[in-house]
Amino acid sequence: MTEIRLIEIKEDILADNDKVAEEIRNRLHSRQVFMLNLMASPGGGKTSLIIETLRGLKQSMRAGVIEGDIDSMVDAEKVAKEGIPAVQLRTGGACHLDAVMVEMALREMDLYALDLIIIENIGNLVCPAEFDTGAVKNAMILSVPEGDDKPLKYPLMFTVCDALVVNKIDYLTMADFDMKVLKERVLKLNPKIRIFEVSCKTGEGIPAWIQWLRDEVANFKK
Amino acid sequence: MTEIRLIEIKEDILADNDKVAEEIRNRLHSRQVFMLNLMASPGGGKTSLIIETLRGLKQSMRAGVIEGDIDSMVDAEKVAKEGIPAVQLRTGGACHLDAVMVEMALREMDLYALDLIIIENIGNLVCPAEFDTGAVKNAMILSVPEGDDKPLKYPLMFTVCDALVVNKIDYLTMADFDMKVLKERVLKLNPKIRIFEVSCKTGEGIPAWIQWLRDEVANFKK
Repeated sequence: MTEIRLIEIKEDILADNDKVAEEIRNRLHSRQVFMLNLMASPGGGKTSLIIETLRGLKQSMRAGVIEGDIDSMVDAEKVAKEGIPAVQLRTGGACHLDAVMVEMALREMDLYALDLIIIENIGNLVCPAEFDTGAVKNAMILSVPEGDDKPLKYPLMFTVCDALVVNKIDYLTMADFDMKVLKERVLKLNPKIRIFEVSCKTGEGIPAWIQWLRDEVANFKK
Repeated sequence: MTEIRLIEIKEDILADNDKVAEEIRNRLHSRQVFMLNLMASPGGGKTSLIIETLRGLKQSMRAGVIEGDIDSMVDAEKVAKEGIPAVQLRTGGACHLDAVMVEMALREMDLYALDLIIIENIGNLVCPAEFDTGAVKNAMILSVPEGDDKPLKYPLMFTVCDALVVNKIDYLTMADFDMKVLKERVLKLNPKIRIFEVSCKTGEGIPAWIQWLRDEVANFKK
């Protein structure tokens, strides 16, 4: 009984959420602000990738960050140290960001002064995949120590993303991780996804990822 | 508005869930079956730890496993290969196991033929922490590549667990991970938690963890 009730409610929430997400997307389009929703497991490297990315883009773009966190502000503090405007959303337990929460963050940002907003979603491969945030594109990180079987276990996340960043490739020698098998599994779920192999620690592969994002923003602004 | 509705519903579900969990716990107590709920991020090493643990216990205990997975059966297949009876719960999207789901799995198990059941919960540091499964004890894995800041970001998980297994200590030389800082952060949230440093790959530290579980089961059966 409990289960059935849960499902009904979820559909309600998802329908409302989709409406708000669509409104956000329209508004961002009219203001020419590109928004990227970045998702990953806890510890996959979201904050590190955001910092590396915005360091690479700071000459050519004005960027802001929306930081989702259940309880702390550590990530927002790291981002703010880089001089990047950041809004912290403390969800107080919620396991994902939805469009209503993103809308609350956007009210705190000067959209006329930005070209790009990156959302750092809650560390979770499950729930964030279900909620449209109003972003133009979705990206996810899979870090090598998590294993190459993750597309089998969290298929929705790999399906809804436009780009997959395989992070921590400096661990490849230590981990039992088959990149070829991973790619086959991912492309079977989502043939259009772009895959980047990077290490935020060594910087390897970061330029190709940044170039993809740069192209997407340029394309959006056309 | 959407947010408020979400919270009300959750409290309903949690109240119902707690009732079912308590019933499960009573029944398992009368049948003298100890149940452990094991939680972790995706790729933290839940299946590996379960396999290592049950290899170590198989001479002295009859064990079964409840495998939670969103979509695949890969973990259940790994466990079954070891000759361990496993029940697979495919949640079809749900990001945690609750007591109602565990109850469904228990109906498929012969409780008179078991001393120990380990639940492998969904890979997620957020939602599983909120739902009582009916287990006697909760344990979690944090793997070294995830980072030592996770207690700051997912405090509830560290608070509800009786034991923390820090897995993949063979990565310590490569990762920016301070074990002393981690322990301080964890103990501040939960002074009673037992912490084990292990590597499922090398086997280091596994015996101490198994001994803890053996003692807990013996204590429960008294």
